[in-house]
Amino acid sequence: MLFFENDYSTATHPEILKRIGELNLEKLSGYGCDKVSESAREKIRKVCERDDLEIFFLVGGTQTNAVMVNSILRAYEGVVAVTTGHISTHEAGAIEYTGHKVLTIPQHQGKMNPDELKDYLVSFYNDDLQTHSVYPGAVYVSHPTEYGTLYTKAELEKISSICKEYEIPFILDGARLGYGVSARETDVTMADIARLCDVFYIGGTKLGALFGEALVYKKENCQKHFSTFIKTHGALLAKGYVTGAQFDEFFTNDLYFKAGKHAIDMAEKLKAGLKAKGYKFYFESPTNLQFPILENEKVEELLKEVVFSFREKYDDNHTIIRLVTDWSTKEEDVDKLLELF
Amino acid sequence: MLFFENDYSTATHPEILKRIGELNLEKLSGYGCDKVSESAREKIRKVCERDDLEIFFLVGGTQTNAVMVNSILRAYEGVVAVTTGHISTHEAGAIEYTGHKVLTIPQHQGKMNPDELKDYLVSFYNDDLQTHSVYPGAVYVSHPTEYGTLYTKAELEKISSICKEYEIPFILDGARLGYGVSARETDVTMADIARLCDVFYIGGTKLGALFGEALVYKKENCQKHFSTFIKTHGALLAKGYVTGAQFDEFFTNDLYFKAGKHAIDMAEKLKAGLKAKGYKFYFESPTNLQFPILENEKVEELLKEVVFSFREKYDDNHTIIRLVTDWSTKEEDVDKLLELF
Amino acid sequence: MLFFENDYSTATHPEILKRIGELNLEKLSGYGCDKVSESAREKIRKVCERDDLEIFFLVGGTQTNAVMVNSILRAYEGVVAVTTGHISTHEAGAIEYTGHKVLTIPQHQGKMNPDELKDYLVSFYNDDLQTHSVYPGAVYVSHPTEYGTLYTKAELEKISSICKEYEIPFILDGARLGYGVSARETDVTMADIARLCDVFYIGGTKLGALFGEALVYKKENCQKHFSTFIKTHGALLAKGYVTGAQFDEFFTNDLYFKAGKHAIDMAEKLKAGLKAKGYKFYFESPTNLQFPILENEKVEELLKEVVFSFREKYDDNHTIIRLVTDWSTKEEDVDKLLELF
Amino acid sequence: MLFFENDYSTATHPEILKRIGELNLEKLSGYGCDKVSESAREKIRKVCERDDLEIFFLVGGTQTNAVMVNSILRAYEGVVAVTTGHISTHEAGAIEYTGHKVLTIPQHQGKMNPDELKDYLVSFYNDDLQTHSVYPGAVYVSHPTEYGTLYTKAELEKISSICKEYEIPFILDGARLGYGVSARETDVTMADIARLCDVFYIGGTKLGALFGEALVYKKENCQKHFSTFIKTHGALLAKGYVTGAQFDEFFTNDLYFKAGKHAIDMAEKLKAGLKAKGYKFYFESPTNLQFPILENEKVEELLKEVVFSFREKYDDNHTIIRLVTDWSTKEEDVDKLLELF
Repeated sequence: MLFFENDYSTATHPEILKRIGELNLEKLSGYGCDKVSESAREKIRKVCERDDLEIFFLVGGTQTNAVMVNSILRAYEGVVAVTTGHISTHEAGAIEYTGHKVLTIPQHQGKMNPDELKDYLVSFYNDDLQTHSVYPGAVYVSHPTEYGTLYTKAELEKISSICKEYEIPFILDGARLGYGVSARETDVTMADIARLCDVFYIGGTKLGALFGEALVYKKENCQKHFSTFIKTHGALLAKGYVTGAQFDEFFTNDLYFKAGKHAIDMAEKLKAGLKAKGYKFYFESPTNLQFPILENEKVEELLKEVVFSFREKYDDNHTIIRLVTDWSTKEEDVDKLLELF
Repeated sequence: MLFFENDYSTATHPEILKRIGELNLEKLSGYGCDKVSESAREKIRKVCERDDLEIFFLVGGTQTNAVMVNSILRAYEGVVAVTTGHISTHEAGAIEYTGHKVLTIPQHQGKMNPDELKDYLVSFYNDDLQTHSVYPGAVYVSHPTEYGTLYTKAELEKISSICKEYEIPFILDGARLGYGVSARETDVTMADIARLCDVFYIGGTKLGALFGEALVYKKENCQKHFSTFIKTHGALLAKGYVTGAQFDEFFTNDLYFKAGKHAIDMAEKLKAGLKAKGYKFYFESPTNLQFPILENEKVEELLKEVVFSFREKYDDNHTIIRLVTDWSTKEEDVDKLLELF
Repeated sequence: MLFFENDYSTATHPEILKRIGELNLEKLSGYGCDKVSESAREKIRKVCERDDLEIFFLVGGTQTNAVMVNSILRAYEGVVAVTTGHISTHEAGAIEYTGHKVLTIPQHQGKMNPDELKDYLVSFYNDDLQTHSVYPGAVYVSHPTEYGTLYTKAELEKISSICKEYEIPFILDGARLGYGVSARETDVTMADIARLCDVFYIGGTKLGALFGEALVYKKENCQKHFSTFIKTHGALLAKGYVTGAQFDEFFTNDLYFKAGKHAIDMAEKLKAGLKAKGYKFYFESPTNLQFPILENEKVEELLKEVVFSFREKYDDNHTIIRLVTDWSTKEEDVDKLLELF
Repeated sequence: MLFFENDYSTATHPEILKRIGELNLEKLSGYGCDKVSESAREKIRKVCERDDLEIFFLVGGTQTNAVMVNSILRAYEGVVAVTTGHISTHEAGAIEYTGHKVLTIPQHQGKMNPDELKDYLVSFYNDDLQTHSVYPGAVYVSHPTEYGTLYTKAELEKISSICKEYEIPFILDGARLGYGVSARETDVTMADIARLCDVFYIGGTKLGALFGEALVYKKENCQKHFSTFIKTHGALLAKGYVTGAQFDEFFTNDLYFKAGKHAIDMAEKLKAGLKAKGYKFYFESPTNLQFPILENEKVEELLKEVVFSFREKYDDNHTIIRLVTDWSTKEEDVDKLLELF
């Protein structure tokens, strides 16, 4: 079977595995207070072009979102996200479990429209019943989105400036950030994100780590004793150096960006191949998630030889499917996949 | 000023006040374990025509909704409600504070469409990503709704039967239940609600209690040590007999229903008067909340002599306003109000 | 039966009831935004001799403690209290339900020893495992304590100064505050408490309100949108003016202090009478809770004519019982009680 | 420097690393629904000698304790543990963050005395104020304890039978279970634990996994949709097969028990060596944590060449230190350490 189902079904980069193996050579302090994690933090500051960043390594995306959101909201505040935002849909209520509502506004190909965000805030603060409502206490976007789409720098700047106007932190879910910054036409860099967001995370799991996400705060947004805060949420790893080492390796010799670029190359090849064969896409995705529209019979036929899971009805005769490449996708598999179309 | 703003701005029925005064004559056990509360419970069982009801007296509506919802959901479950349901909008995140998501489906004049509920559940259980989503663990309706509309018995039966099919408790927010069962054309009685719902509450505050809501469980749905559960939520009153006494009085000589009927009579008079003068309504409400459509100038004019708060744009020249009657509305005030139109 | 069981079994002062009755004469805004509540707030500021107080009216003690504690702690912080503090024992886990640990230190006749508090903090901050522990984020005392004992002004000053040194808010549970400040030999006034504590509450329920506690913040300690915060906790009353009116009445013509003084007079009479008959007390309580030591047979005998609930073994032949007076205790009942000894 | 500080400072067994490397050869389903995890589950059932076990792989100990405790308690229930239990002390309030109190009873060399547990329960259910208290909803022990001590089979049976009598689940924290079952004189096996406990976990991190704990439920104690429950707590790993593979390797060729035995052998050698030199121990520990009593000067001297962190005053001239061996401790390091005494 050809595998194009998701970006977390191959365990890890050989380089990362090798690096983890080298950890056995020494004794390292626990809970993220080790020199390997410190080195990774320094490299992330460099790639983000800022000295004022506090960085913590967590284990998974849902956990990181929950810790991130709960760290900046007061009890009566919620987080504004689009209806298809990951925290709105597929995190099993982990945000609500921390006590906070996800306040939703419409999505457009997975993205938030800055004007609609502004309208939402204007109308919230005009509402007589405001004090009985959940206050918007943070704005959340995923970049790339759950549909593989990307914000432009101008869009992120607009959202960031609305957030500043309303004194609301702007947070960014970068579960697939490496694929975003590696897209061919994006004008958004890691440094832009570090500049525009108050808190964000750099996804490791989907880029080829065994596990791990790097949570990044501008110093001023980070509360005291944050490692303890993480532990209270059950998210502090004893062998924190294992996560640290993975991120240290990611940002040595550009491994993170190479991993991103490879998936993008594979996705672009796939996209070009399908377009050449006349296939249409549900929308233009510049990253590793591609959404071609197929005839229903074609879908059934493909399923015999290809693993993919997401399917959505397009019309009575057509279905949208999701094909995913990642850092580990083999070019020959893309070729074989294209032959099946 | 004429007051038609809401149904909680007059303190309490003289009968209830008198009854509370009589409590001073004796020493009563605390925390709801008193004979007055027990008498009130017995009367509620009678009016609901069921022996198998466990009844607890809480203080306010948001609190009661939070306790009710949290008592029947597991950590990974949410409660299905329409977008305008009180728990979806104006409870300051009290449901999410208990850790649970409010899962919303569309509203129709404030009501849930049973078929749309069914569709929601069918589609939830067909979704491949189900295990990453918040499970629907309860279905919530308000009766009357936040727009004063009412379910028919057939509709409640349909929702109840869908809930049974999916083994999901059906819960009902009766903050204004007294106005609902007193509406002129409703075919829904207290006994119907007690039969069809797994848990519900009988609102006292808006019907003329100083405060207080009666939370009613079918015995099988009520967990052990429920008074302690209530206390954990900060919702157990030391002088529980004060709430008990109010409900005991409500269900002595039909005070609860008389209070309801009076508000309905005033609302119907208001409605008839406005219709006679050619006014249209946003929709037909059979209860104490009325939503006439006014020219914008008229709204400004009225505001000089009438207190009302809810306003929503209808079109560029018209506004929908909300006029509220309650147990304490004076007929002469309705007359005076009508003269202003 | 003579009733000396607790201080919440008589409903309410006639003056308070009368005042509530007068509320019916007008329409008042909901949720504590009314002029009656504002008047009560102003009177509390006066009696506390400070202008910089934000005051909110809540319903019950456990609820108020939970809101108070949760409003000032970060997720990884707990509240330090003595083992017999109300939040440590008899609040059904309401504090933990807000996510916070109650960190206990020993009690001495219900009181916290300032030196032991200091030792606790010194040792916490010396501990290598500090970052894995719950940080002390607030210090809680009850005044009077659960045993009726009182802090001296010097003791409260010492605790307050330790809190300042460690930048930890000092919070005070005044469920029975009215009995505390009315004690004969206390040197602690309401103004002292308002000066020394960062947050505290003035208990209404046990002093003769139907219900209600006044939560008092120094402005700098009170977060934005606090009414919404209260509502998120299910603790905001629609008819907030009913609570406001009770406190307004309490601080008109010194009703609060008269209520306190009456209970103290009755307790002192009881104490003197018992001492005259040779009875010993478990310890010297200057307030409305008295703990005489009785022979076991005497306890059984008394139970036939007196209601009291607390009993603790003193030695094989003796039992400590708790006798409680309150604002409503009749002098003739004290006389009758004394005759039974 | 010689390292005897803890059991989580060496990354992982070479066999486990190798096994993780092999995962790259295939595509595996996410979230624990993979064949490797299934194989691990089957092996755990075998080693526990029971078919009726549901097994979930989580990431760290604090997280697993929080999920485990929260999965079996109602909102008004707490978990009974000794004062030195890990959940009582060094989990940064993670249990309270789930809303539950840790109810403490005294420890004896880190252990719970079954008779004291019984007394606690008897006295709880005799207490008049029971309904205002946190109900004991689970009993928690660590085996080995935080002091390296072990329960006998008879003691576990006694606790288990008390739990059955009171219908309270018995849960066991096995963060170091591999060291416990490998101790020389223990009569407690994995099968005993699986038989006597309702829920427990098998620690991986401290036995040489990169990370990972296996949470084991008797089927009847495990709620529906448990993977979703785990995700709600932010504890579900996308690449669950990485945890599964580590446990599969642990229970292939007895790696788990070999790892345990090695640490025990090193600890016993250390203990024998120190005893031969006349050192006394704070108490007799049969596992990998050893607590010798040293003269203060000796401690200072040792710190120049040995890493260890735990120190507690024994008397004015003596200090108790903690020396820890693990699966990776080199015999030559033990020899070198002994030479320093």
